[in-house]
Amino acid sequence: MLRFVVSICPIHFQSTYNGVVGFVGLGNMGGHMATNLAQRGFDVRLFDKFPNRVDQVRKEAGVELSTRLIKVNSLKELLDDDCLSAVITMLPSSPQVLESSDSGLIAMARKNTLFIDCTTGDPKIAEEVHAYAFSRRCAFVDAPVSGGVPAAQQATLTFMVGGSAEPVSQATPLLQAMGKQVFHCGPVGTGLAAKICNNMLLAVSMIAVSEVMCLGGHLGLDPHVLSKIINCSSGRCWSSEVYNPVPGVLPNVPSSKGYVGGFGVALMTKDLGLAQQASTMTGCPTPLGSAAHQLYRILCQSGYAQKDFSSIYQFLSKSS
Amino acid sequence: MLRFVVSICPIHFQSTYNGVVGFVGLGNMGGHMATNLAQRGFDVRLFDKFPNRVDQVRKEAGVELSTRLIKVNSLKELLDDDCLSAVITMLPSSPQVLESSDSGLIAMARKNTLFIDCTTGDPKIAEEVHAYAFSRRCAFVDAPVSGGVPAAQQATLTFMVGGSAEPVSQATPLLQAMGKQVFHCGPVGTGLAAKICNNMLLAVSMIAVSEVMCLGGHLGLDPHVLSKIINCSSGRCWSSEVYNPVPGVLPNVPSSKGYVGGFGVALMTKDLGLAQQASTMTGCPTPLGSAAHQLYRILCQSGYAQKDFSSIYQFLSKSS
Amino acid sequence: MLRFVVSICPIHFQSTYNGVVGFVGLGNMGGHMATNLAQRGFDVRLFDKFPNRVDQVRKEAGVELSTRLIKVNSLKELLDDDCLSAVITMLPSSPQVLESSDSGLIAMARKNTLFIDCTTGDPKIAEEVHAYAFSRRCAFVDAPVSGGVPAAQQATLTFMVGGSAEPVSQATPLLQAMGKQVFHCGPVGTGLAAKICNNMLLAVSMIAVSEVMCLGGHLGLDPHVLSKIINCSSGRCWSSEVYNPVPGVLPNVPSSKGYVGGFGVALMTKDLGLAQQASTMTGCPTPLGSAAHQLYRILCQSGYAQKDFSSIYQFLSKSS
Amino acid sequence: MLRFVVSICPIHFQSTYNGVVGFVGLGNMGGHMATNLAQRGFDVRLFDKFPNRVDQVRKEAGVELSTRLIKVNSLKELLDDDCLSAVITMLPSSPQVLESSDSGLIAMARKNTLFIDCTTGDPKIAEEVHAYAFSRRCAFVDAPVSGGVPAAQQATLTFMVGGSAEPVSQATPLLQAMGKQVFHCGPVGTGLAAKICNNMLLAVSMIAVSEVMCLGGHLGLDPHVLSKIINCSSGRCWSSEVYNPVPGVLPNVPSSKGYVGGFGVALMTKDLGLAQQASTMTGCPTPLGSAAHQLYRILCQSGYAQKDFSSIYQFLSKSS
Repeated sequence: MLRFVVSICPIHFQSTYNGVVGFVGLGNMGGHMATNLAQRGFDVRLFDKFPNRVDQVRKEAGVELSTRLIKVNSLKELLDDDCLSAVITMLPSSPQVLESSDSGLIAMARKNTLFIDCTTGDPKIAEEVHAYAFSRRCAFVDAPVSGGVPAAQQATLTFMVGGSAEPVSQATPLLQAMGKQVFHCGPVGTGLAAKICNNMLLAVSMIAVSEVMCLGGHLGLDPHVLSKIINCSSGRCWSSEVYNPVPGVLPNVPSSKGYVGGFGVALMTKDLGLAQQASTMTGCPTPLGSAAHQLYRILCQSGYAQKDFSSIYQFLSKSS
Repeated sequence: MLRFVVSICPIHFQSTYNGVVGFVGLGNMGGHMATNLAQRGFDVRLFDKFPNRVDQVRKEAGVELSTRLIKVNSLKELLDDDCLSAVITMLPSSPQVLESSDSGLIAMARKNTLFIDCTTGDPKIAEEVHAYAFSRRCAFVDAPVSGGVPAAQQATLTFMVGGSAEPVSQATPLLQAMGKQVFHCGPVGTGLAAKICNNMLLAVSMIAVSEVMCLGGHLGLDPHVLSKIINCSSGRCWSSEVYNPVPGVLPNVPSSKGYVGGFGVALMTKDLGLAQQASTMTGCPTPLGSAAHQLYRILCQSGYAQKDFSSIYQFLSKSS
Repeated sequence: MLRFVVSICPIHFQSTYNGVVGFVGLGNMGGHMATNLAQRGFDVRLFDKFPNRVDQVRKEAGVELSTRLIKVNSLKELLDDDCLSAVITMLPSSPQVLESSDSGLIAMARKNTLFIDCTTGDPKIAEEVHAYAFSRRCAFVDAPVSGGVPAAQQATLTFMVGGSAEPVSQATPLLQAMGKQVFHCGPVGTGLAAKICNNMLLAVSMIAVSEVMCLGGHLGLDPHVLSKIINCSSGRCWSSEVYNPVPGVLPNVPSSKGYVGGFGVALMTKDLGLAQQASTMTGCPTPLGSAAHQLYRILCQSGYAQKDFSSIYQFLSKSS
Repeated sequence: MLRFVVSICPIHFQSTYNGVVGFVGLGNMGGHMATNLAQRGFDVRLFDKFPNRVDQVRKEAGVELSTRLIKVNSLKELLDDDCLSAVITMLPSSPQVLESSDSGLIAMARKNTLFIDCTTGDPKIAEEVHAYAFSRRCAFVDAPVSGGVPAAQQATLTFMVGGSAEPVSQATPLLQAMGKQVFHCGPVGTGLAAKICNNMLLAVSMIAVSEVMCLGGHLGLDPHVLSKIINCSSGRCWSSEVYNPVPGVLPNVPSSKGYVGGFGVALMTKDLGLAQQASTMTGCPTPLGSAAHQLYRILCQSGYAQKDFSSIYQFLSKSS
């Protein structure tokens, strides 16, 4: 589909033009992702419920790129381009703009529009959106990301994609413009399934690393020594090696910068809630995933909602 | 101390003789460890409460090596060698043979004997044994291992050592004869502390990997695909990469061989109990470590005690 | 409303006639509830997706009563009576027959019909059904029950009712015909909220009683003595006093009859799932409720789904 | 034994003299207990490591009673009375004064002295103390209490007693002087076993009541209504009926007085630690007891250590 679109559209930047894409949701991630699409030759029509976010993204992109970053003022206007082939959504939770409603994106879109939802949302809602998109002769894939803001900026995100073979192959060039790795996980919903599985495992690992660093400290171990031992033993994990929660063990991670930035407790709590919904729906026991969810919920109540999720170490180790 | 001993003793195998060592506990691990000591030139005096274990170890070592593997019939006889400089213990739990008692090893040993306890036991008991050894003018280090039976066989174990500088440096050549890495963690007890911290983290990771593999399966994900995604994402950990609990994802791991061999549920439960004792003693909260302990205890009750600890996947995923 | 209906309808059984009620769902609870309504003078129109359930209920009610238990063959026919003032639903989970759909009960009902849903379902769905009923000029209350099959049979159920003042007062005579206590909890959804709160507390208590009875046994305590002490101490609770999970401590409870009958593990697991959904939706931490949910889910996987929920004692205490 | 002693001793207060008892530990509980013994006619020899506690207890008892409350300045002096037949200990944790040591109470006591330990301590240590007392021809019973400070003051405590038949029957008159109910639970250690079982159940119940009151509040339920429903339903328990954790639901409970007084979080955490030690030692799974332990440990870290244990409600319900 994308290739076809290219051939019938006027070419702005001769050698690189790749088509027109809509982008909804210009938060910390979305802004960089849209800019990277422009960088790789896409014309991107931008919408955010806070219009000055669009202005900011265009400004940060620089004069030349900003000609490919087109500000629109409504979802309706976003769709109003004959060459638009795909719409990407990147929002805090399962996007209402995609759900069945006369004023929603899918209802207003032309036939054959491809919807790529990069939001971390509910796999079940993704299936419903997919069914609705199908009924409107549009295509849908779920394509949640991992890697965080730095990877969004550097176009090195990992995408986990759920959908049928054809829309996934159509989405791939767009995703490659924003990331490094694209995994096709299976039918619609499986991209999200992989994402919430990974994040549940991440949450449990982070809490467990924090527990052992805290316990080790009580038992007289230096956190640098304990981390070194763990990182070459069977306890080795990303949370210990790459994102250690103890201040000072690694440079340039949130724990060494006051737990500012990174992946917030509130967002992790949301993802753990999605995992629990999925696990209740399927009857699958997830005792530690569930306990991790409760702990992060307690952190939300205890003033940690906006801190990085590695602040569980701070919570567990605070002196009485 | 070892070097001194070397100089006053008759030299059997000219170029390699390293001294005389006692070894108590010839289980799956201890047999290989003692054999490796002999291989590196130590004379090893062997004791096990099941005397035929000694015979078996000597037989498996071959004719030549067995001349350096000396069978003794009691703890008293084990110590009865003027050149004996160190005694290594490798037992299922904190060795009673080391605790204060007139018939215990320490009470019967000469001054300056170095006790190296490779058992995974209670750090608090290690401190008590150390104090008793000190009162008897002997030295003590705790030196638990990681790596399992294959690493014991190939002399590639990792040792986590707790003790004062001098005894640790004396123990190091012996440990290097049996392993690849020797970490000096701090004072007596910290070797065990590092070990139980690592194993608690390992247990939690293994359960969490099993939960997400199980949940992912329910959500339509292929375990190979999900493992691949996790292994290059933030959920990455040893339990997923090296010891995946889903049958068939990795070759030659216990999960692909009916959960036979490996590190048993009962032993992991014991280690988690030690971690909980330490955490209760220090007042450190370990919510997931504690939940992992309970789950493995439930597995013990449910017929999994002798299976590899990755069988938690089988337990969680069994159909109703 | 009911009183008004009474005055314009032909009176069958002079002194007792109370109006016409529809009843959907004739399971172990519903059959007795419908029969009790007939006993108190209501004409009850019966529907179940298994028509022979209706025949069985009528047969068990006896010849005389069965004249007031009218079998209908469809939801449409159930509503087809000018005197019908209320429809009661008693189903395994949030009834689809009430959700917005052209073939659903509410869409087909006359204005002013009162819907009383006795199912233990999701409070959020109750709110949606209520809004839909309101849009169709019908009334809705959620009125889940407690007390189990014996209380259903003896008309001693407790009803927890959520709804506006008027529909609740209209529902009250019907509920009183089937039960002993009617609590008005607040607006729509609060009846269900009270029910799932109670059941979450019940599940946690039952597991905790089972844990201490099991632990006490390991420590040498006789279960009768421990129960007696608990029942006059601060650990006292319904699960210990009235429904003790240890076989033989109380007569005539499921634990003394092979854990047959009573309130099944699968149903408790469902209710705990509703509590978790509510707690995720509201962000309220429920660490023990969540752990109880996971444990009952594990029981479902381990062959206990159809046993009474007190069988958690059997699960925890089985010998290795 | 007590009766024999009575016959050979000088009688101070003709009709009521019951013998001489030592009492160690005059905290909030112990002070009242000792005073009640004096009130019932015992001469009580008092020791506390803070000597002014003894003075305060004597002062509060009034002039007349204080003649029967004899201050001593050492453990040695406490024992120095020919008529002393029993020593009661009431301390914060398993009393070191009873453990084997030349300067300990048992080592210094005459043959046949009965030791009654009312401390909530470790059943395993109780067994060791018992064995040591036996070797010294003394008797030992564990007799932990329930009821709190008010019951100590009003002599309405409940005693759970572990020991052989004879020492238990000797202890009974003393216990009856301080309490209302005396349960003989079985051999030494079972009194403590019953106590920690009850308290573990209490902790779990209290947390669960707090969770449902918190969840109910989020779902729009009035706490008075929800408590009323629970108290006549299957969720009924002491923590809801008698000691409700929601401020204002009951008068005169700690929750209605700023969570001051009552049974502190730190003490509950200690008891839960004892329960976990016992459960690890016996291999009995106690998943919710363990989770409750961790939660109370987190409360200790979060500034609640000195508040009443019902403050878990405050912790869970605090707004973000």
